Amino acid sequence: MRDRLAHRNSEISSFHVMELLRRAKELESQGKEVIHMEIGEPDFNTPQTVINAGIVHLKTGNVKYTPAAGLPGLRQKIATFYKTRYGVSINWQQVFITPGASGAFLLAFGTSLNPNEELLMSDPCYPCNNNFAALFGAKCKNIPVDGNTNYQLTANLIKKHWSSTTKGALIASPSNPTGTLISAEELEQTIKTVNSLGGCFFSDEIYHGLVYDQTATTALAFSDNVFVINSFSKYFGMTGWRIGWLIVPEEFIEATEKLAQNIYISTSTQSQYAALASFDVDTIAELEFRRTEFAARRDFLYDKLIKLGFKIDIKPDGAFYIYANCEKFTDDSYQFAVDLLESKAVAITPGIDFGHHKANIMLRFSYTTSIDNLTIGIKRLERFINE
Amino acid sequence: MRDRLAHRNSEISSFHVMELLRRAKELESQGKEVIHMEIGEPDFNTPQTVINAGIVHLKTGNVKYTPAAGLPGLRQKIATFYKTRYGVSINWQQVFITPGASGAFLLAFGTSLNPNEELLMSDPCYPCNNNFAALFGAKCKNIPVDGNTNYQLTANLIKKHWSSTTKGALIASPSNPTGTLISAEELEQTIKTVNSLGGCFFSDEIYHGLVYDQTATTALAFSDNVFVINSFSKYFGMTGWRIGWLIVPEEFIEATEKLAQNIYISTSTQSQYAALASFDVDTIAELEFRRTEFAARRDFLYDKLIKLGFKIDIKPDGAFYIYANCEKFTDDSYQFAVDLLESKAVAITPGIDFGHHKANIMLRFSYTTSIDNLTIGIKRLERFINE
Repeated sequence: MRDRLAHRNSEISSFHVMELLRRAKELESQGKEVIHMEIGEPDFNTPQTVINAGIVHLKTGNVKYTPAAGLPGLRQKIATFYKTRYGVSINWQQVFITPGASGAFLLAFGTSLNPNEELLMSDPCYPCNNNFAALFGAKCKNIPVDGNTNYQLTANLIKKHWSSTTKGALIASPSNPTGTLISAEELEQTIKTVNSLGGCFFSDEIYHGLVYDQTATTALAFSDNVFVINSFSKYFGMTGWRIGWLIVPEEFIEATEKLAQNIYISTSTQSQYAALASFDVDTIAELEFRRTEFAARRDFLYDKLIKLGFKIDIKPDGAFYIYANCEKFTDDSYQFAVDLLESKAVAITPGIDFGHHKANIMLRFSYTTSIDNLTIGIKRLERFINE
Repeated sequence: MRDRLAHRNSEISSFHVMELLRRAKELESQGKEVIHMEIGEPDFNTPQTVINAGIVHLKTGNVKYTPAAGLPGLRQKIATFYKTRYGVSINWQQVFITPGASGAFLLAFGTSLNPNEELLMSDPCYPCNNNFAALFGAKCKNIPVDGNTNYQLTANLIKKHWSSTTKGALIASPSNPTGTLISAEELEQTIKTVNSLGGCFFSDEIYHGLVYDQTATTALAFSDNVFVINSFSKYFGMTGWRIGWLIVPEEFIEATEKLAQNIYISTSTQSQYAALASFDVDTIAELEFRRTEFAARRDFLYDKLIKLGFKIDIKPDGAFYIYANCEKFTDDSYQFAVDLLESKAVAITPGIDFGHHKANIMLRFSYTTSIDNLTIGIKRLERFINE
């Protein structure tokens, strides 16, 4: 029988960390206490105010479909949030509520990318973003970046790599895996460049809010001719609820609505009602408290890794990741991660999950666990290195 | 500036009923009492047992991501459900929990359909199913069917229309918009035919459970080399929760897991915990009570439409739709639906939303509203016809 699997399956990359996660669970089932520094999910529960709002809504019994674009009240709250947090005015009808940032990427790329068109992204980057493009037959050109550009694309890099098949560029700031931000000036220049080339500008802002020294700037501050992908998962602590949002240029509103109606009908109703409480004063106070906790963890982990001999070009300023160069210890970071897990029960993510550029000497450490756990993890890492 | 919209946007059809819905809401905001017979959503709330399970889970505060394939306990319950309801044994690892049947279609078509490959479907059919294929650049061949084959494809039709580019066939039973079922014998033959041709067989079973005189047979009764799409939305009354499932052939498990990890990470956690209560004795008793209510509505509406002069080839036996021929009154069913809404405030769905075959003389009536409302709707329809 012929192979019935679609060709795109082989173009969609697997996460190597999944194999590590599977092994970590095995170790745990054998009674080992694994320190998890591989996970891209906040350890904090959803804020109680938000959970309560979800419960109140469930008690009404009314868990029917909402409009495909989401509850108008939630879309309006998000528009207001851009005004209060960033000083940016947007039309709430450009805001679409989506099943996580995943749904936002499906809509943004689904409405804009033709097969064989090219999208410029950085290497390293979050691999799902490549895979969303592959889903639609589009190609990603991942441009190697390093500390010299904050691990971000620049206007010059975009100009240099733009070709007749390029459809657009994606900037993720703060970046996963590096936690680094693009400066406001460079963000403005990249948007101007892409717009002048007639392309689509995609701004992945899912780690906004989790920024510690500077403030993150939204792409909407410079143009409303951009796609902004955001989520209630990270800063707002709503991972399992599967809710995010997408802001689209005016010319994409109709196509986005049609695609949303077709590919997901609507986002979970109770998640939308719960998310209405995300912008309450009490919720924001709790989230800001968590932000200071993340900042403290970052400082702790950064110092310890430097002391152990890891190289970190830029002290990361956002998300909950540190992308560290481990060439002092190995030129095979995947094997390093495997061995560290096997011998010391510490889970981290190898660079190969984020691209090709120097991936073999890079490791991503997450600080989505307490300083107590990080302390244990670092001690074990130190023993591992010195054995 | 060049058109930045992807070409696929023009291949994805809009729902004409959306314009009618918009107008219905306008009329309601003007104080008119609209009778809704256009809606594909049960009017019953989610069963209280399921809501309670959702609340209990939210109170734990633990709303984190689940594995991409879903909670193992829920996948196992679904496998057990196939044993108890259909007498069919399946491996629970072939079961994937998805964000609604929408997510199931994304996975099933995303892992199997290459661009320009063809999928055989009936005309009329549910238009989203075409649009999911269009999303991946695949083509649908919609084969006209009528009452002679229960508005279903047959093994002979599949053989006749199969070509070198055909990748598979989709059967939806009970059908939306016709409510008709494929017989067990014909289902077996269609599966055998598609399997012998080396294609993929997709069985849309989202209206299973809502069947009134016969019993619906699952495709899994005849082969485990099939894709089965199902949902907690219709029979289980969980529309707004956005949860469904997909059962895949063994050879697709790995690709399906990888695609799920990439395109949606996981299905809403609280929806999964709530759905665990769907198979409880109390829940099933409530759902079976609702089924008898739907059956009574079907009988009522069917008799009234026949008396008014609509032609209905086959008394529908499932879902909550009647697909009625209105040629006695019009050869423009879309205009008929518009005029009925404007003059009598009754909303129904025009045939054009389900394909081309005789679409201009067909109308879909939903019985997702009480017999009291159906009575009012029918009276208004009678006045409309006789004016």
